[in-house]
Amino acid sequence: MDNNFVKIIPLGGLGEIGKNITVIEYLNEIVVIDCGIAFPDEEMYGVDLVISDIDYLKRNKEKIKGIYLTHGHEDHIGGIPYILKEINVPIYGTKLTIGLIENKLREHDMLSSSKLNIISAEEIVQLENLKIEFIRVTHSIADSCAIAIHTPVGVLLHTGDFKIDYTPIDGKIMNLERFSTLGKNGVLLLMADSTNVEREGHTISEKSIGEALNRIFSGAVGRVIVATFASNIHRMQQIVDASIKYKRKVVFSGRSMENVSKVAMELGYLHIPNEFLISLDDMQTYSNHEITIITTGSQGEPMAALARIAFSSHRKIRIESDDLFIISASPIPGNEKLISRVINQLFRKGIDVIYEDLEEVHVSGHAYKEELKLIHTLVHPKYFMPVHGEYRHLVHHSQLAQNLGMKKENIFIGDIGKILSVSENHAEFCGSVKSGSIFVDGLGIGDVGNIVLRDRKHLAQDGMVTIVVTIERESYSIIAGPDIITRGFIFVKESEELIREVKVIVNEELQRCLDKKIIEWCVLKSNIKKSTERYLFDKTKRRPIILPVIMEI
Amino acid sequence: MDNNFVKIIPLGGLGEIGKNITVIEYLNEIVVIDCGIAFPDEEMYGVDLVISDIDYLKRNKEKIKGIYLTHGHEDHIGGIPYILKEINVPIYGTKLTIGLIENKLREHDMLSSSKLNIISAEEIVQLENLKIEFIRVTHSIADSCAIAIHTPVGVLLHTGDFKIDYTPIDGKIMNLERFSTLGKNGVLLLMADSTNVEREGHTISEKSIGEALNRIFSGAVGRVIVATFASNIHRMQQIVDASIKYKRKVVFSGRSMENVSKVAMELGYLHIPNEFLISLDDMQTYSNHEITIITTGSQGEPMAALARIAFSSHRKIRIESDDLFIISASPIPGNEKLISRVINQLFRKGIDVIYEDLEEVHVSGHAYKEELKLIHTLVHPKYFMPVHGEYRHLVHHSQLAQNLGMKKENIFIGDIGKILSVSENHAEFCGSVKSGSIFVDGLGIGDVGNIVLRDRKHLAQDGMVTIVVTIERESYSIIAGPDIITRGFIFVKESEELIREVKVIVNEELQRCLDKKIIEWCVLKSNIKKSTERYLFDKTKRRPIILPVIMEI
Repeated sequence: MDNNFVKIIPLGGLGEIGKNITVIEYLNEIVVIDCGIAFPDEEMYGVDLVISDIDYLKRNKEKIKGIYLTHGHEDHIGGIPYILKEINVPIYGTKLTIGLIENKLREHDMLSSSKLNIISAEEIVQLENLKIEFIRVTHSIADSCAIAIHTPVGVLLHTGDFKIDYTPIDGKIMNLERFSTLGKNGVLLLMADSTNVEREGHTISEKSIGEALNRIFSGAVGRVIVATFASNIHRMQQIVDASIKYKRKVVFSGRSMENVSKVAMELGYLHIPNEFLISLDDMQTYSNHEITIITTGSQGEPMAALARIAFSSHRKIRIESDDLFIISASPIPGNEKLISRVINQLFRKGIDVIYEDLEEVHVSGHAYKEELKLIHTLVHPKYFMPVHGEYRHLVHHSQLAQNLGMKKENIFIGDIGKILSVSENHAEFCGSVKSGSIFVDGLGIGDVGNIVLRDRKHLAQDGMVTIVVTIERESYSIIAGPDIITRGFIFVKESEELIREVKVIVNEELQRCLDKKIIEWCVLKSNIKKSTERYLFDKTKRRPIILPVIMEI
Repeated sequence: MDNNFVKIIPLGGLGEIGKNITVIEYLNEIVVIDCGIAFPDEEMYGVDLVISDIDYLKRNKEKIKGIYLTHGHEDHIGGIPYILKEINVPIYGTKLTIGLIENKLREHDMLSSSKLNIISAEEIVQLENLKIEFIRVTHSIADSCAIAIHTPVGVLLHTGDFKIDYTPIDGKIMNLERFSTLGKNGVLLLMADSTNVEREGHTISEKSIGEALNRIFSGAVGRVIVATFASNIHRMQQIVDASIKYKRKVVFSGRSMENVSKVAMELGYLHIPNEFLISLDDMQTYSNHEITIITTGSQGEPMAALARIAFSSHRKIRIESDDLFIISASPIPGNEKLISRVINQLFRKGIDVIYEDLEEVHVSGHAYKEELKLIHTLVHPKYFMPVHGEYRHLVHHSQLAQNLGMKKENIFIGDIGKILSVSENHAEFCGSVKSGSIFVDGLGIGDVGNIVLRDRKHLAQDGMVTIVVTIERESYSIIAGPDIITRGFIFVKESEELIREVKVIVNEELQRCLDKKIIEWCVLKSNIKKSTERYLFDKTKRRPIILPVIMEI
């Protein structure tokens, strides 16, 4: 009886948006659900992406039976190349998900050494004690699944990301029946997507976008340029369908758009008649009204195709006066100003832009309140842990479950690294494991930490002042310098007097020390730093990083 | 006839949100409407605030007859202390607006030398050729006005910021009658607020907030802590009224909240019976359910009172478990994540927070589409220039006017510094004046420019590597160093080998030069820089600022 419990350890995705990864452990078996990345927030200067600390998995690698992926979004699969460098375990996912990962691993030159397994929805992987069942859901990427883990203690159900779309583009509706059957037979623990728990009502079907696109396409006289998420293949299909209807050829622009569309076509998730697909280079042989461009950059990312087109720095696409732009996406929180910049720039060039505020050209992929209520009602689990959301979303999801009659003591608001132990008649938090964020910057993984970030922030705020001086030890005398170099602090022109004064102060300070035969670096440096800091703050109310360097001969 | 035109020159507030300032010039008379600041965007590292380049005003200062202020928001009055340092011209505004400016000038120690003039709505200032008329409007701050400038060429009407609130808290409704009369008699040029031109329908009355507050207050068991904009005195009044109704004392927290409430009470815009106003220090003598705290920080600003309370760093206010927080504000674009951070932190502490997504605790102060249509219909000007908005807002405002029957050629989408010349039967853009943004950082005004910002951005991204070496000129030899110091680049622990290798590279590079008797600093530095850059990029895919310093003895 002692061993009759299962441990659930989220290593990411709780109390944050992104880097979803959840560990399920029963006796000697561990399965991992998803392995995503998060995008850096504005305080993480220079960081390219964020992955989870998987120390716990490294220390238990012999137990890991595989990583089971719910769907192919970056916040669920983006961490795979990084985790596989540490622990090369089997990966399971549906065809499209695995196709996208192959692409990713090829870029990292890791494809041949990885163990990828395609599994279809409603299939089951049988381990020693655990059974992993994939259940079809609808979401903003095709081939998405929830995952049920059948354990000797009971069934755990993880929804993954989902919405309930009764009219999905590919006709493959969410397997609500299976949710219902599992619920009927008893679900021990439900883990459900909390992203949109604050939104009233029910998401709109992806299909509604098709109607809006047709309306917009019917009035377009020049090229139509649509920016959207590269992973939203259903959206892509609808843009393609509208293009075909209005006799337009389709061009893909932007690296991820080209990659994903290629994979999706090869695997049969995206259908474009050959005669409708052309390359960027072929574009010039067609008139503007015969062209649709599907592009990356819907978040206003300065380096992505859309921003390059808007700011006239795209290698191949020049703006034309009869272009019509559609931004078929919502800004991810934090990107509002970037995308605004691009929209304003297009308007400045006299170009028409249609975006979410003006027409219904985007719908969310995450369940709203009423959909969540349906899932809770069908599954009516014994215990519930809200997942995938900032802390406030988790709290509101807990309140939603309580409003449906669930007892507060059966709901567990978890956190990264916090262990939830669940047995047939009891659940509780019991301790935690090492967890957190690892920053990826260029080739470095984890070599940028809080000290580096603190310095970058400090440098960003006020710049820096380097003070260099060479002294001769024997004679206690300054023989070169002090030289003052600033970066990011103040206009050189405006600062001449300031710099002259700093030299005087440093000289005096040094001389005072040397006269007293003090030559310890740390004392000299600290004195120079303090006097300079004080002077500069007094004059400018800024606190640049002061970097005294003393060379000694 | 030649001189029968008036020039309109916006120096801020077009193609951007903030720092509104518009110059109106007729013969030898210039009047300035508003003089605001903008808040820095995320690319403006370390910048505290942004003001407009007023070069044109400095060069024409003898013509300036005054600055006429529409209302007391920072983006309309914040630039006053800076402009007065350059040109000490008379200021005109309504009682509350001038009260807020007095406060501001007192802080800058400039009050005694300024020429402030209180004027009431519907009053007129008569100049030589121009007449300046203040017309009451409704907005999210009391005592707001539109301004009509009667010129020999015709009437110019500037709405300022406004919404049409038929049930304002102070009962002072917008003078639509005057708009209508001006329209009937003929308005030459309308300049109107474009902020919310993309929003359908009509704004909700400020009064509706009172109802929501009463509902929320009626259920609160502990303290109620409301964060809102300090300038929204009507909102303050409604929070006070709800507090009185539910027998709560009111405490103001945060410097600007304390300042503004004081001014507003003194001038009769905010009414609090003496027995209901207490200080932070008095709070402890009351029970929690007897207290309302009105606080700054509704944008999640890390240094403001709300964030300090949430993160337990407020000097006097500790969170208590029965507290109820209300965020009675919308995030200004760019602040979404800051405010989210505070909300999540409160939820983590188990505290209830009510915000816009959940209940109607905020309404906008800027006219929506239907309100703008009303103004256009009443005023039906000959010419129209949309103001106050990003470029896309100006374009959409132009489209709105066209939909109401205005000819496109009579609408002028202006830009900062662009001169619009208007005569009785003709309007056109004719040239431009020097204009732009001046950054204020600490005590420095304009000493942070694009080079400094570019360096700060570079430092923020990848940090910096300083290389210091001392050489002896006579012997062409290195006598100390190279020393390598990094900040914001990489963990010291992880970088030991990297740094060692950089030393070797620098040494080799220097030796190569010195062997060839090359000692020109620029050559040495540039060679060191290039080799180090190449090596570090190869190893880390990062490009820190490389700062070689060569000392010579």
